[in-house]
Amino acid sequence: MISNRFDLRVIYADTDMMGRVYYGKYLEYFEAARSHMLRAINLPYSELEKMGVFLPVIEAHCEYKGAATFEDNLIIHTSINQFPKAKIRIDYKVFKDGNEAVIAKGYTVHSFIKKTGQPIRPPKIFLDALKNHWVEE
Amino acid sequence: MISNRFDLRVIYADTDMMGRVYYGKYLEYFEAARSHMLRAINLPYSELEKMGVFLPVIEAHCEYKGAATFEDNLIIHTSINQFPKAKIRIDYKVFKDGNEAVIAKGYTVHSFIKKTGQPIRPPKIFLDALKNHWVEE
Amino acid sequence: MISNRFDLRVIYADTDMMGRVYYGKYLEYFEAARSHMLRAINLPYSELEKMGVFLPVIEAHCEYKGAATFEDNLIIHTSINQFPKAKIRIDYKVFKDGNEAVIAKGYTVHSFIKKTGQPIRPPKIFLDALKNHWVEE
Amino acid sequence: MISNRFDLRVIYADTDMMGRVYYGKYLEYFEAARSHMLRAINLPYSELEKMGVFLPVIEAHCEYKGAATFEDNLIIHTSINQFPKAKIRIDYKVFKDGNEAVIAKGYTVHSFIKKTGQPIRPPKIFLDALKNHWVEE
Repeated sequence: MISNRFDLRVIYADTDMMGRVYYGKYLEYFEAARSHMLRAINLPYSELEKMGVFLPVIEAHCEYKGAATFEDNLIIHTSINQFPKAKIRIDYKVFKDGNEAVIAKGYTVHSFIKKTGQPIRPPKIFLDALKNHWVEE
Repeated sequence: MISNRFDLRVIYADTDMMGRVYYGKYLEYFEAARSHMLRAINLPYSELEKMGVFLPVIEAHCEYKGAATFEDNLIIHTSINQFPKAKIRIDYKVFKDGNEAVIAKGYTVHSFIKKTGQPIRPPKIFLDALKNHWVEE
Repeated sequence: MISNRFDLRVIYADTDMMGRVYYGKYLEYFEAARSHMLRAINLPYSELEKMGVFLPVIEAHCEYKGAATFEDNLIIHTSINQFPKAKIRIDYKVFKDGNEAVIAKGYTVHSFIKKTGQPIRPPKIFLDALKNHWVEE
Repeated sequence: MISNRFDLRVIYADTDMMGRVYYGKYLEYFEAARSHMLRAINLPYSELEKMGVFLPVIEAHCEYKGAATFEDNLIIHTSINQFPKAKIRIDYKVFKDGNEAVIAKGYTVHSFIKKTGQPIRPPKIFLDALKNHWVEE
């Protein structure tokens, strides 16, 4: 598996009139955490795109177990638990700093495409980066 | 079932550098469509909140089958297919105007709570509004 | 001058924990209204971009006189009051439906560039569209 | 004056189909930087709100001198240059890390109100925090 920790602080813009982080914002948090994980394995997503490799989201899921609010420090644990074939699944768990309770968890599934939209296999450079950082659970 | 159609036009802010609507935006589109459906059954969500009834999202799911871009006219078909007990599930399908292909589909699941966060049963006014507009499939 | 009216309904995502529309959202409202005005003069911004003409914002300003909240119906009056030379300025006033009080007003200034970023003069098709719809005040 | 540096990394959600950070996002960046500055003078905005003091934005301005894109490291220099009377003005300058060119600059003006919306004078605790951290230019 690959795992990564990403920290973020909730801004006012992320909250809604219920006083909580708006449910759609978690998909942005997942994206920030996902990009952070890719940088940690030396494969920034911006570099992948420059090589002509795009990983659009084809499925996204989130379960909300608790609430976060303005100025909360959130920790997002991101992980890849299955080595990718045609698609890749990435898992996320969101915590408040100093608290073990999961406030949200979810996953995204991505395909690999060219800029034209044509599906491709996961490129070797991507699979190699995963292998180099893969840790048996 | 309850079903509803909501139309929206993609703005530039909704797009990302892939030239598509950002995946997280669909949860905002779902919300706009959901609120539109509640107004159509004479139960605006703003009125529910004034009565002290909140329907936070406890689960959200979206599958992306195609892409939308700036100035596309999107149609969102929203439906409630099961009469709610403790929770309510709402389904969404997104189309481009004039095209039968689903570009995204998903659902949200909501609980019923008081402002304090305490879970409550779906209020009678809510269940009555559903009954009054319920159509057998 | 060119003037245009655009209607929109505030969604929950647009609000913040103060219970109001978040101040940054007004720039999205301005954009939606601006694109609506360009469509009304038969010059959709998506068409302009396809011709290789981009109008990035080089200045944005907004004054907040009141507050809007979830499910408010807003009306945005958009206008071009000076015929453009190198740049174009667009003005916006936001009202609640049925109320004369301005809740926000502002402007954006845009340059004309090619996709490469190179500045260009306003293209003839753009100036012609303005002339064809120009109304003396 | 009070001055502060805030670092952020551009996420994909912040970009638009021009491949740049969307112009409205800068107001969110300003907010994140502003809240960061208030925490640095031991006056987190979340604490102010708990004391019943709100600082809504009554004016916002931004000039765009350059462009930022996905994964750019941005630095925001935030400053208060005039000691507040009834209102407070906060200034922002956005740079890319390692580059002296300003890519955006702007300001926000805030009033002081109670939750009810009633204008108040800047509270003593706020003025004291400014005095304690004030540096002559």
